[in-house]
Amino acid sequence: MGLDKVRKTSLSDAVTDSVIAWIREGRYRAGDRLPTERELAERLGVGRTSVREGLRFLEKLGILEIRQGTGTMVRSLSLGEVFDHLVPVQTIIDLPDRDVRHIMHVRRVLEAESAQLAAQHATERQLGRLDELLDGMAASLERPRDYLEMDLEFHVVVAEAAANPVLAHLIDLIRTIYTRYFEIVLRDPDMNRTSLDFHRKLYAALRDHDPKPPASTSSPT
Amino acid sequence: MGLDKVRKTSLSDAVTDSVIAWIREGRYRAGDRLPTERELAERLGVGRTSVREGLRFLEKLGILEIRQGTGTMVRSLSLGEVFDHLVPVQTIIDLPDRDVRHIMHVRRVLEAESAQLAAQHATERQLGRLDELLDGMAASLERPRDYLEMDLEFHVVVAEAAANPVLAHLIDLIRTIYTRYFEIVLRDPDMNRTSLDFHRKLYAALRDHDPKPPASTSSPT
Repeated sequence: MGLDKVRKTSLSDAVTDSVIAWIREGRYRAGDRLPTERELAERLGVGRTSVREGLRFLEKLGILEIRQGTGTMVRSLSLGEVFDHLVPVQTIIDLPDRDVRHIMHVRRVLEAESAQLAAQHATERQLGRLDELLDGMAASLERPRDYLEMDLEFHVVVAEAAANPVLAHLIDLIRTIYTRYFEIVLRDPDMNRTSLDFHRKLYAALRDHDPKPPASTSSPT
Repeated sequence: MGLDKVRKTSLSDAVTDSVIAWIREGRYRAGDRLPTERELAERLGVGRTSVREGLRFLEKLGILEIRQGTGTMVRSLSLGEVFDHLVPVQTIIDLPDRDVRHIMHVRRVLEAESAQLAAQHATERQLGRLDELLDGMAASLERPRDYLEMDLEFHVVVAEAAANPVLAHLIDLIRTIYTRYFEIVLRDPDMNRTSLDFHRKLYAALRDHDPKPPASTSSPT
């Protein structure tokens, strides 16, 4: 029975892999209809249950759209959707401490770039929101969770102001992973004061279009 | 019938979302066993088919391990596995030209950091491999595809030498997306010569532990 299960899993995986390969090679493009379940089962030499399971997986990933009656269509998948699909997975991965440090390092690199681009591109509305958030953060120094929420939004606004959606997605993704480890950060009572000081300097640099905004070397948030 | 299908999809999605939320909240951790299908169906108020489908999706993502007889276990998911799961999806997304430019920008930022870290940490073995690749690239100037393959490996070795696996995963992921658009790049006959020159300078900087290695501002590969 255990063996049956393993075989079934790998057969539906084979269906998934084949469909992905066809899309990658350009045999089926966004908007195209895939062959019927029966045709796919014949072509791939597997049962219809495996075909259905493989297609359903791709539907859940947003790659296919299955409609009773009209068939299975290839969807056009944007970068934003791919990242959205990832978020649940990212939030539950188990990271050793070493990886957390590596993630912090990458986060700093991406956010330094984000700040540099934001200094060039930030709109008045975005600068206004950052200013509001700084006021909110100053008023929340004794409430670490409220502070952290505004702190996170601060960086999201900076990433948006950078006007590079790929950079913004990556920063958001890394923050989602990283936020799980904030419990450790929240234990340090002086953290928010150091952090507020950094965010104020960053804001001033963005407002003044400083080409070298400060990087968060000490602030963990 | 169409409605039935939609309802079924959202019920199994609800199962998926609930299990992810439980893991995120720490109610079930890596190594723990989930309740039986029957118990889950009762607790969530959905049919067993939806439970099975929701769990199977999480199994395919690597979050759960379903074993007939012993039950469903929460797996420990590493960052590497998450990225591996992503690769098939990443290779088939549809990017507008604007996003390709944004991706190139992020790639340059990450690879500049990767080169800086590699200048500090590259081993003799890694430097030796880079040197070999440069020879291979020089010999393949008239064969763009061979050249490109070695060029890609060059950057993978640099990312490994940077000794930050998160950075290496992100660079690999971005290259996987980006490689789809190399057809455009391959049309330019002078591309490889410019590129080889850049890679030689980068290698020399890594070998000499130059803290500011050259950044690929002109080389598209």
